[in-house]
Amino acid sequence: MFSVFPIDGGIVAPQGFYCDGVSAGLKKDCGLDVAFIYADSLCEVEGVFTQNKFCAAPIVHFQSYPKDFKTNFVLINAKNANALTGNEGIENVKEVLGELQSRFNGIQNPIMSSTGVIGVQLPKEKIVASFSKFDLSQKNHKNASNAILTTDRFEKTIAFEVVLDDKASFKIGAMCKGAGMINPSLATMLCFITTDADVPKSDMKELLLKAADSTFNAISVDGDTSTNDSILLLSNGKSGAYEREAFLFALEKVMHKLAMDITRDGEGATKLVAFEVNGAKDDLEAQKCAKALSQSLLVKTALFGCDPNWGRIASTIGASGIFCDSKKLEIYFGDVCVYKKGVIYFDKENEQKAAEILKQDSFKITCELGVAEGSFTAYGCDLGYEYVKINADYRT
Amino acid sequence: MFSVFPIDGGIVAPQGFYCDGVSAGLKKDCGLDVAFIYADSLCEVEGVFTQNKFCAAPIVHFQSYPKDFKTNFVLINAKNANALTGNEGIENVKEVLGELQSRFNGIQNPIMSSTGVIGVQLPKEKIVASFSKFDLSQKNHKNASNAILTTDRFEKTIAFEVVLDDKASFKIGAMCKGAGMINPSLATMLCFITTDADVPKSDMKELLLKAADSTFNAISVDGDTSTNDSILLLSNGKSGAYEREAFLFALEKVMHKLAMDITRDGEGATKLVAFEVNGAKDDLEAQKCAKALSQSLLVKTALFGCDPNWGRIASTIGASGIFCDSKKLEIYFGDVCVYKKGVIYFDKENEQKAAEILKQDSFKITCELGVAEGSFTAYGCDLGYEYVKINADYRT
Repeated sequence: MFSVFPIDGGIVAPQGFYCDGVSAGLKKDCGLDVAFIYADSLCEVEGVFTQNKFCAAPIVHFQSYPKDFKTNFVLINAKNANALTGNEGIENVKEVLGELQSRFNGIQNPIMSSTGVIGVQLPKEKIVASFSKFDLSQKNHKNASNAILTTDRFEKTIAFEVVLDDKASFKIGAMCKGAGMINPSLATMLCFITTDADVPKSDMKELLLKAADSTFNAISVDGDTSTNDSILLLSNGKSGAYEREAFLFALEKVMHKLAMDITRDGEGATKLVAFEVNGAKDDLEAQKCAKALSQSLLVKTALFGCDPNWGRIASTIGASGIFCDSKKLEIYFGDVCVYKKGVIYFDKENEQKAAEILKQDSFKITCELGVAEGSFTAYGCDLGYEYVKINADYRT
Repeated sequence: MFSVFPIDGGIVAPQGFYCDGVSAGLKKDCGLDVAFIYADSLCEVEGVFTQNKFCAAPIVHFQSYPKDFKTNFVLINAKNANALTGNEGIENVKEVLGELQSRFNGIQNPIMSSTGVIGVQLPKEKIVASFSKFDLSQKNHKNASNAILTTDRFEKTIAFEVVLDDKASFKIGAMCKGAGMINPSLATMLCFITTDADVPKSDMKELLLKAADSTFNAISVDGDTSTNDSILLLSNGKSGAYEREAFLFALEKVMHKLAMDITRDGEGATKLVAFEVNGAKDDLEAQKCAKALSQSLLVKTALFGCDPNWGRIASTIGASGIFCDSKKLEIYFGDVCVYKKGVIYFDKENEQKAAEILKQDSFKITCELGVAEGSFTAYGCDLGYEYVKINADYRT
């Protein structure tokens, strides 16, 4: 047994971590746009990255380190993705990180992480110039989590303390950014997780991937996969405490909360929707169906209009390529059944009840396929005018 | 050799076909909403239908006829899809068509085709009542092509005369509706093609499928597949003329024109975009990539904003799951190269040139993958505020 308590401090809640966010002049209006995470001892590090074939220069750079390297520094910038920038992009990462190391003693194997516009070379002079504002003794996680945002409307940060049976305890904290280009095979986002748990290196990747499956890999904003998606886990082992089951529980809790925040903050999103699919042939078919629902433009726009258009839900299930049968299907908005095994329950009263559910900030749509035992829940948001506005104007 | 001339008359340009559109009170404001196609002799018929597992009642009804059945009547209604309506939906088709046969002598094996809202039982009394307005001697293809529209902004109709070498000739005509729910594996639409060519029954399905590949199956508006997609080909052989190559050429021309019309008329679309992918590992990978581009929300919104955001194009290619290499890739807006084999050509001048291209009504985006010889062109449109408006409000 173990207990988990929410605590303040985000990524610097675990002992030995420091961070801040500064302005390098990349965002308009002198907004914060460069952040760092510094650890006062070397950390084990694991990453999960985008499946996009054109992954960004900082990811290529990360992968050029020897397997099992340790680090004590992550540099993050917004407004420029440093993707599709060729060798020059990779050289720029090296140059920027080289400057960093020459300015601050003791930085080893620094990692860079970028988000923003694709296909523009890194504004490295501005980033390097911002190093003069770095104070490695800061623990300002609000600034850091603000600096990494692009079109996000709010900061996304979380931390927990986990107390084990023997009263030993460890902490885990995280921050992330999301908003646009959120897609199911690792949502387009940057997520940084720190912990002072004494995680064995061999557990790190396995638990990260396991936790990602039901969290970041279950969400969708627009179905696009970015070149920069990254989840980084840094562990300094300072607490001396660890228990696999407790750590996985806390890691999933951290990642679930941030994944929900990202979905809720989908560009222009007004509601967070869980698409629960049960009774599929197997879990994989349930996942395929749930993700198709969370990505359907016709479903997303109907949700935006608070229109309980269950026909679009059914049509999307039918088009998703999975095994299904309209005589076994059931569809629920919240707990309101609108279609059950071939019979339509959609009189004025039920329609109104369903429409009321859709007016809520967050709700569940359940589809019972009645075929076998496969289940999956995908998370999505509605799509409205704001999404178009943000994405038609993003570069200009 | 053969010659092909555009002619007037749409689906009633071929001899022996009649049609009209009437108002049954399904659309607001007494708009036309029920259409018929009548042939004065029995026709061979072939259909290509949606892959959606929950295909609509009229499609199930069509498939209940014996193989190689002949028909002389198609009844079409807008505003109600008669999909997800169970056995009652199928019984309603039979009842409506039975009423039709008892009112008009000589109608054999009538076909029904529906488009509109899913999951609501057919307003059969209204449809049956509208039969009193049917005059089977009418050749009013404007009324018919107007009656089948839902959110379309304009009628889609076309006809050609094909003159063969021996001066024999035949005609082919068509009408269709499209707009929302347009997706690549048979765009969500209804398309009706008539011909007096003496097509052997054995050629009909093969040529229909072949023509669909580069036309209706290459377009995308929103990536959703409807429950009602149908292409019907009716052939009465009255001209006595036929040549396989000439017929396929004309059929592809008819279907290409209508597919482009559907894409151009995508809900709220302001431009028609051809996504040409060359140099892929094979044609299938080129198709996968081209369709991913035509369906990417981030690409579609950038096009709406006339933003030559080539980074999103590249990112979508990288995420499409095909074999590609950023050092071999080239990207063009019209004839403006913005990225070539790792080098970015995106100074102010080129950016402005590219933005000018995007302001046109229709243009091409070319992606040279430089891997092998696979090619495919997909067609899509931009996505703007109107799409959201139409689809958030469709039912209400």
